[in-house]
Amino acid sequence: MLGNYRIRTDLALEETERFSEENVEIRGVEVSESYDEEKDVRTTVVKITTENGAHAMGRPQGSYITIEAPNLSLPDEDYHREISKEIARHLAQLIDLDKEQSVLVVGLGNSAITADSLGPHVVENLRMTRHVIREYGLKSMGEEKMHQTSGIIPGVMAQTGMETSEIVQGVVEETKPDVVIAVDALAARSTRRLNRTIQITDTGINPGSGVGNHRNGLTEDNLHVKVIGIGVPTVVDAATIVHDSMAHLLDALDEREQKEFLEEMISPHLHSMFVTPKDVDETVKYLSFTISEGLNMAFLGEEARV
Amino acid sequence: MLGNYRIRTDLALEETERFSEENVEIRGVEVSESYDEEKDVRTTVVKITTENGAHAMGRPQGSYITIEAPNLSLPDEDYHREISKEIARHLAQLIDLDKEQSVLVVGLGNSAITADSLGPHVVENLRMTRHVIREYGLKSMGEEKMHQTSGIIPGVMAQTGMETSEIVQGVVEETKPDVVIAVDALAARSTRRLNRTIQITDTGINPGSGVGNHRNGLTEDNLHVKVIGIGVPTVVDAATIVHDSMAHLLDALDEREQKEFLEEMISPHLHSMFVTPKDVDETVKYLSFTISEGLNMAFLGEEARV
Amino acid sequence: MLGNYRIRTDLALEETERFSEENVEIRGVEVSESYDEEKDVRTTVVKITTENGAHAMGRPQGSYITIEAPNLSLPDEDYHREISKEIARHLAQLIDLDKEQSVLVVGLGNSAITADSLGPHVVENLRMTRHVIREYGLKSMGEEKMHQTSGIIPGVMAQTGMETSEIVQGVVEETKPDVVIAVDALAARSTRRLNRTIQITDTGINPGSGVGNHRNGLTEDNLHVKVIGIGVPTVVDAATIVHDSMAHLLDALDEREQKEFLEEMISPHLHSMFVTPKDVDETVKYLSFTISEGLNMAFLGEEARV
Amino acid sequence: MLGNYRIRTDLALEETERFSEENVEIRGVEVSESYDEEKDVRTTVVKITTENGAHAMGRPQGSYITIEAPNLSLPDEDYHREISKEIARHLAQLIDLDKEQSVLVVGLGNSAITADSLGPHVVENLRMTRHVIREYGLKSMGEEKMHQTSGIIPGVMAQTGMETSEIVQGVVEETKPDVVIAVDALAARSTRRLNRTIQITDTGINPGSGVGNHRNGLTEDNLHVKVIGIGVPTVVDAATIVHDSMAHLLDALDEREQKEFLEEMISPHLHSMFVTPKDVDETVKYLSFTISEGLNMAFLGEEARV
Repeated sequence: MLGNYRIRTDLALEETERFSEENVEIRGVEVSESYDEEKDVRTTVVKITTENGAHAMGRPQGSYITIEAPNLSLPDEDYHREISKEIARHLAQLIDLDKEQSVLVVGLGNSAITADSLGPHVVENLRMTRHVIREYGLKSMGEEKMHQTSGIIPGVMAQTGMETSEIVQGVVEETKPDVVIAVDALAARSTRRLNRTIQITDTGINPGSGVGNHRNGLTEDNLHVKVIGIGVPTVVDAATIVHDSMAHLLDALDEREQKEFLEEMISPHLHSMFVTPKDVDETVKYLSFTISEGLNMAFLGEEARV
Repeated sequence: MLGNYRIRTDLALEETERFSEENVEIRGVEVSESYDEEKDVRTTVVKITTENGAHAMGRPQGSYITIEAPNLSLPDEDYHREISKEIARHLAQLIDLDKEQSVLVVGLGNSAITADSLGPHVVENLRMTRHVIREYGLKSMGEEKMHQTSGIIPGVMAQTGMETSEIVQGVVEETKPDVVIAVDALAARSTRRLNRTIQITDTGINPGSGVGNHRNGLTEDNLHVKVIGIGVPTVVDAATIVHDSMAHLLDALDEREQKEFLEEMISPHLHSMFVTPKDVDETVKYLSFTISEGLNMAFLGEEARV
Repeated sequence: MLGNYRIRTDLALEETERFSEENVEIRGVEVSESYDEEKDVRTTVVKITTENGAHAMGRPQGSYITIEAPNLSLPDEDYHREISKEIARHLAQLIDLDKEQSVLVVGLGNSAITADSLGPHVVENLRMTRHVIREYGLKSMGEEKMHQTSGIIPGVMAQTGMETSEIVQGVVEETKPDVVIAVDALAARSTRRLNRTIQITDTGINPGSGVGNHRNGLTEDNLHVKVIGIGVPTVVDAATIVHDSMAHLLDALDEREQKEFLEEMISPHLHSMFVTPKDVDETVKYLSFTISEGLNMAFLGEEARV
Repeated sequence: MLGNYRIRTDLALEETERFSEENVEIRGVEVSESYDEEKDVRTTVVKITTENGAHAMGRPQGSYITIEAPNLSLPDEDYHREISKEIARHLAQLIDLDKEQSVLVVGLGNSAITADSLGPHVVENLRMTRHVIREYGLKSMGEEKMHQTSGIIPGVMAQTGMETSEIVQGVVEETKPDVVIAVDALAARSTRRLNRTIQITDTGINPGSGVGNHRNGLTEDNLHVKVIGIGVPTVVDAATIVHDSMAHLLDALDEREQKEFLEEMISPHLHSMFVTPKDVDETVKYLSFTISEGLNMAFLGEEARV
């Protein structure tokens, strides 16, 4: 392992791998894994249960569910529908859907940068019901029970002059949803996880995470309602792949030597570079559709439509 | 004139023409006009000064400035810069720019419908300074005085499940701008005004106006700060052009006969149709750029860039 | 009927209605109609069989199949799949698919103008096989028989400096397809037909037709291979709706009086205006997907995918 | 240097650096460099003059002009105009503009993949004159002499089912231009060159080059007219940055050892990954505008417009 030279990842799962490589067990962090062979879907749940665990993992206490589905980057409609169902199933465990809920979905990220446009695309694909239910009542939807969905694409600070959290706080105070779901593109540490992994967490969005590095996060602390974060890694820092390729070279060195070696090796220039799959434009579209269908299923009880 | 059968227009100027056709003068409504021959720009100011005037005009008391510039729909960069300057000049009269202001620009409309995408495009082209000034101070901008600009594209109700006014109210309460500028695509009554007319008003955005028919408006009443509305007509109701073509046919009829005649003549189907110039996709881009440059000039003191 | 004052339509079906209004039968023009009540789809076949018929109809001899499906403008995935099957079925009657064919699909129109972007969108949605079959053989596709599909989006003259027919002729000569399918957005005479009508014809694309008015057409005459035209009306000339609204007013006048009356009534300005449904941006996407799925089914034997 | 383990670059300049690192001089390759300090623009001309030089360099005989302009990725309108002028100046040396020329500009690449969309964007920004001059004569342009410009965006093989070279050959045979200018996004070896380097060459486009790896090139050999290639590197192979970071580590090893070492080190997975700057979406727009303005200046004698 590479000592203090911590490579950034937004996936809690990848953070735990850092420890497991060293056969270190962290108190306050529980990891459980299940594998659906038929669908080739691996689901890992990382639970951070103590302040000590949170410190070691560099992220807040809570549950981090990771769905790894290698075929997610392929355009197989049936497979994507299965994953949408998985997302809906996990959301139903995190939110009490027996009572009617009002849900605000926030599509984080910059829609003008492909790798960062996952969140906006998800909100574009969602079916909104809040305004109809409030105006005409539930019966107008032909349903006995239905959750109220609303959504916003707040943009990024360079586009708006405002912190994303300011915009979302204002909208939350005004429209008073019961729960916020924030969707964002993430940075991973391994290129193998790009566009085929979905992380769902009840801790919201951490400050400094995401492709665009949100300064403030979206959390229950600042929004005063439950916040679920849903993310897909779409990029790896360019410096990371150099780092990873050399990992086993460095085993012989002590921590300080490693750090010095890497600082010399990895050009600072690389930190303004992304590594991204060649087909990122296409896969971001598939993935955002799969997530929005998962949300539609969870809250509106429907199957996918065109 | 066509009696009670009122054809919708978002331009106060067109509303006054209804009266002038009949040589009726309305108390509480003042109209003044100036014409710049060199630039071929006609500026009309309609002032509604009394409750009676507001009732007759069907819109609130305040000033409605209309810039008519026939060449606006052509891609002549120099001409557009002149119009940007005109916009900046009018804004400087409506807002006290001697003291530093915090300005929130709201881009109304549906970015997925070309004719309704003016507002979103304007906000995309704006330079935002609020976050920089708040983080690093004015000096970081290399200026002694600069206004704080921020912007938001709230989307439309079908996309968000929320009233636009709810979103903007939340953002205004959270970020506390001194003035809101709301930009919107409008419906005109005459196809000759499409894409070559800009209306600036200190009354904000009226309920029911715009291409997309905002249910609630954005006004000082609901936002509790000054609201300037800027609009460009990009569509005419399809029913209107039928109506206009037949106007002089109808002169012989009394009001009730006219109404009956028109109701029979104009298929209800037409009301879901737009009339729009063939080149609307291109001109909406030019126009939104011209308006955003006008705002940049007014608040950032700059000339146009790429 | 309105005498010589001929309103433009790209639909042969609408041309025949001109005559049927007058109870005139045209020799050399056969019209047959069928209606599927369950699906609410009306199919009309107009056959122009003589030079006389061609002259009266103002278009070349051949078959013009019109599918009218009122629900086409709604986002009902199952309904659209039914229409895709209808398209595939008609193509199978126009092209001998028992032998392997090489098919070039040409997406006509200007992708920067929503109402004219149907053709480009269709080609974007198509699955191409020609390059795979030529490189790796049929077996690589896992099929015993499969047609070779290729496609091009030639752009419009203002974008390319070339006649569309020059580009397509060059590509046809170089790649030698057996049949060309040209897809285009059309102008209709009735707003009720917009976005819910598909015309398929074995006469190709006529000169002067389409939203963008192609100067030269794409026909067997200039391409030297069979040309099938597929079109959907997305606009109506603004002048037309005025004309239609007044049609029965004019019954009392003779032809010359009608013409004079209309010329005075319809502002020349209107001829640079479109009438288009408010949701044209969304429906053009649905429709292009439906047509491309019809082509995929006809040539690749597949069902729709995401 | 890294022996036979050749890292791909589309820049001739980078290929020469491979030799200069080793202080090897290649017969048949001449390199000359000039630097404009005021504009901070470095221009390098690599001339491959013999078959031996072509073999060593892995690309055909001819001239390769490289403009390196560090500020190209910034939105400084004046700076971009200077670079447009540089491009126009170099083109005037490669093409005899004293006589009237007919120029076909080909925008290579996949417009749906941001990093590969440079070519299509350039053609979108160009002013076309061929159709106007052919229809109305030179006088209609208000000029005594003007070159005929036309352009095409052929798409990529997966979108069209055709080799790009087939499409361009067909169009060239049909429209008979005097010279073809092919614009393409390139792969570089150094991330420092991304989006700030322009290569102009009289050898056309080499087979296997470009972000999308064109199988056949566009050369005088297959088009039978002069072909100028213009390219900008927008991506680096992900494997390359690992390779470069380790370069000096490897100095101690012999060629075979290096190769083995690298093959083990660089995951095959990396070869489907791009490294690209975070702001690639925005800079590709600036750059394509700069190149199209360079072409407009060269052939139409104009300054930039909106």
